[in-house]
Amino acid sequence: MVPGSLRTLLAGCGATVVRPILLRHAGHSLRSNCSSKLVLLSRHYSSGGAPRLTADANPYVKRADFKRLSVDDISYFKSILSAQEILEAGDEENLEFYNEDWMRKYRGQSRLVLRPRSTENVSKILSYCNEQKIAVVPQGGNTGLVGGSVPVFDEVVLSTSQLNKVRHFDEVSGILKCDAGLILENADQFLAEKGHIFPLDLGAKGSCQVGGLVATNAGGLRLLRYGSLHGSVLGLEVVLPNGEIVSSMDALRKDNTGYDIKQLFIGSEGTLGVITGVSILCPPRPLAFNVCYLGVDSYETVQKVFTKARSELGEVLSAFEFMDASSQKLTKHHLKNVPSPLEDEFPFYILIETSGSNKEHDDAKLETFLENAMNEELVLDGIIAQDETDFRNIWQWREFIPEASTAGGGVYKYDVSLPLKDLYSLVEAANEELDKKGLMSMEDSSKPVITSIGYGHLGDGNLHLNVAVRGYCKEVEAALEPFVYEYVASKNGSISAEHGLGFQKKRYISYSKSEPEIRIMKALRRQFDPNGILNPYKYL
Amino acid sequence: MVPGSLRTLLAGCGATVVRPILLRHAGHSLRSNCSSKLVLLSRHYSSGGAPRLTADANPYVKRADFKRLSVDDISYFKSILSAQEILEAGDEENLEFYNEDWMRKYRGQSRLVLRPRSTENVSKILSYCNEQKIAVVPQGGNTGLVGGSVPVFDEVVLSTSQLNKVRHFDEVSGILKCDAGLILENADQFLAEKGHIFPLDLGAKGSCQVGGLVATNAGGLRLLRYGSLHGSVLGLEVVLPNGEIVSSMDALRKDNTGYDIKQLFIGSEGTLGVITGVSILCPPRPLAFNVCYLGVDSYETVQKVFTKARSELGEVLSAFEFMDASSQKLTKHHLKNVPSPLEDEFPFYILIETSGSNKEHDDAKLETFLENAMNEELVLDGIIAQDETDFRNIWQWREFIPEASTAGGGVYKYDVSLPLKDLYSLVEAANEELDKKGLMSMEDSSKPVITSIGYGHLGDGNLHLNVAVRGYCKEVEAALEPFVYEYVASKNGSISAEHGLGFQKKRYISYSKSEPEIRIMKALRRQFDPNGILNPYKYL
Repeated sequence: MVPGSLRTLLAGCGATVVRPILLRHAGHSLRSNCSSKLVLLSRHYSSGGAPRLTADANPYVKRADFKRLSVDDISYFKSILSAQEILEAGDEENLEFYNEDWMRKYRGQSRLVLRPRSTENVSKILSYCNEQKIAVVPQGGNTGLVGGSVPVFDEVVLSTSQLNKVRHFDEVSGILKCDAGLILENADQFLAEKGHIFPLDLGAKGSCQVGGLVATNAGGLRLLRYGSLHGSVLGLEVVLPNGEIVSSMDALRKDNTGYDIKQLFIGSEGTLGVITGVSILCPPRPLAFNVCYLGVDSYETVQKVFTKARSELGEVLSAFEFMDASSQKLTKHHLKNVPSPLEDEFPFYILIETSGSNKEHDDAKLETFLENAMNEELVLDGIIAQDETDFRNIWQWREFIPEASTAGGGVYKYDVSLPLKDLYSLVEAANEELDKKGLMSMEDSSKPVITSIGYGHLGDGNLHLNVAVRGYCKEVEAALEPFVYEYVASKNGSISAEHGLGFQKKRYISYSKSEPEIRIMKALRRQFDPNGILNPYKYL
Repeated sequence: MVPGSLRTLLAGCGATVVRPILLRHAGHSLRSNCSSKLVLLSRHYSSGGAPRLTADANPYVKRADFKRLSVDDISYFKSILSAQEILEAGDEENLEFYNEDWMRKYRGQSRLVLRPRSTENVSKILSYCNEQKIAVVPQGGNTGLVGGSVPVFDEVVLSTSQLNKVRHFDEVSGILKCDAGLILENADQFLAEKGHIFPLDLGAKGSCQVGGLVATNAGGLRLLRYGSLHGSVLGLEVVLPNGEIVSSMDALRKDNTGYDIKQLFIGSEGTLGVITGVSILCPPRPLAFNVCYLGVDSYETVQKVFTKARSELGEVLSAFEFMDASSQKLTKHHLKNVPSPLEDEFPFYILIETSGSNKEHDDAKLETFLENAMNEELVLDGIIAQDETDFRNIWQWREFIPEASTAGGGVYKYDVSLPLKDLYSLVEAANEELDKKGLMSMEDSSKPVITSIGYGHLGDGNLHLNVAVRGYCKEVEAALEPFVYEYVASKNGSISAEHGLGFQKKRYISYSKSEPEIRIMKALRRQFDPNGILNPYKYL
């Protein structure tokens, strides 16, 4: 990495800060290459053979009374779909991909994957399954982290991966209409050529699909700037469990005619209907990006730097991520070919991104902010990206953390919302708990836990607690659950900030939602899916 | 107004633009004084006595089989509420306020207004009304424009006006928790003192209430910058028709645990439950504001200036309003004490507001933008506010339009979303229709229509079509409805961008929503309110 950290450059003066070279956007995402590679690589990290069957690992879950697939059923699907739209028993390697989740923690037993190429075919499939009481798991890019998109038993997998076209883009309004299976990175590349940006970004962008993002109400790295999908999704095309197609794809930016029913599908994790089309508002693409990486002495200082950044960087602040020392040590251990941004080690690190319409103005704002933060001794050392390579490298030290967490064998991931002041205390409490039970050691490979780390989107009050393990085991799970959920509930937090409920958190929703809320949700699910064929054993 | 329009200042040069004096925010809303006055004044404009009873003017609506209030019912309410929480028959002047809408177009016949001071009392009232099958109209500030918040027959009015406290504000996250009846202006003044801003602004801010804004999913003047309430509302406290209190007030910025049911209440216009508390994300208050008022030659140019503004002003653009010549002529006729911003007349006018964190940067962006727009001959003339008085005056030429529209006797208001290219064509089509039927004349007072004008939030694709009339009459209504709705539907627009459905548009929802969508909505309403006691005769 470029020599000359902020500390050196600012030594003895209050005026000179290294001038960052701002990165003009050249028609593609600045981080696109690395992130898609990360996702592909991840499959090779897990140790040993296939993960245990979810049904075996969780014997309390019993198969419900859904119809088992018959020869007639397969014949019916073959009569309405082309050969490219069906994967069946015999094609084990491919079936495996759809049965296993990204973390290799959950494994289903589906013998049929349908990959329809049109909304009409989705409709025919669901209509038939509903009549025949065949259970269905809708699946997007299968990058979820709570086991929500893979089967538990023999559910049919309904993949949106072949519904992957851009339908329409309006350059004046910035409204993109696309199929649900369009991969985020492809959507963003398309938008970049038009001078716009997808209002959401995340590490799995090379695999995750727009429809899956909406179905799980993904948050990601740009929420601080562009807000949640509840604000930016303008319309959806959804196939209901009975096969009926409901579309609000023509919706404009404002529409106050009746209940905003599309909102129910945002974050419904495939339990109310299958999203086949998305209409979403995409802001103008910023012309200038900056990123800096800072070392600070405590979590308290992290919060102070955040308040300062929000006030002084104002409308150009686009990301504020924090990482603890353990997360960066673990990253250092596994991210061999990317130099560490800072030579010294610090208790906490901060990544700040700015993006705006005027290079000079953004530079000036960031310089002034960093100068003040150094002079006030909030920031101990830091570095600003000087070119596109730096920009990517710095982001990798944040985006590689999930990979580094699984590299030792596996990871227990908790994604919670907490009031800012309490945010990091959960990591400390979890470490204490794991220590107390003698389950954790960086060196001693007889201990199941390697380390427990904390990082996340501070601007959104969103903490990722990752417990990196040498393998999945009941002792660690028993130490963490319901401990983590109880801790979060005691601080009025949410047990799932952005990852959703899926299979993992189905039983824990009452830590974040009240009895009347859960009752309303169950009634809604029954209303939309009276036969309960969509994504059973999960969510509620 | 300050002399020296842009045209004069820019004559013969491409470099010198008058330097705007940016307005630092001094702990109160820049437009607060005028807007609250406008709302109070509005009551005095209408000609003649009380408006016709809604029931008489719309004989097709029949009273449903709700219980008529008995002496026992009144006694019950008196047993649970204090004297200050009840207005009953005998207090005619006060009852009138709750029975009549802001436009004096709708008039109900309620003989009982309840103004509970606690959520618990709202709960007791609804529980009783639900058991007894007594119809209830929830009412906020009663500033709605579609007759949604006033009774049609003898429904009990449940006013939130005495639920008006700030509950909590978190200075780090910017999350405000307040009662539903808090007046928008009061909320914004409270936030100003904390360096934050309410993410929504509108002309009726002196009267409208936060809960009412949420219940009607109000859009207003800051949507372009801060997005819709579906994104910024984080939690709600709602009393269901059966009296049950459902709260998500503790919710943090991100929470993916189950369906986001609060979204259903946003824009439900009091048909699913009564909102009693709101938790909302309030951004840091910009430190610098600019406003300019420009004259252009055509609607086509308005669109070009918008595209240019969005690109060059980027993240500091906070409002882009357009107004046609007729709207400004009508305003000139009634807004006697505020000088016209520009001496000459133009076919279209544009108001642009910027707000940001750095005065110098914002100035520079606006100057460069205007200089280019003048040199490219997009903008024919314009003026930039030089001080706070200018700032208020310019905004008045936009915000006074609704008042000017009613000043001649009454107004038919249509608030629609249309694709940008088609936005203004509706005004032309409506004018043609009214002309063809011989109903319109500025001078001839025997014609019912004075003029028909168009203006609105261009950045949101939102047009306000106001047909200013000398009095309400069936001929004009027949010329406009369903003509306007059919026109909007033919362009795939929305018949209500932000005003909602209320009483006025209940019968026209099918112009904007499909049969399956309407069926889902009706099922939702039945699920939440099986006895149909909340806001009957409206919405769906």
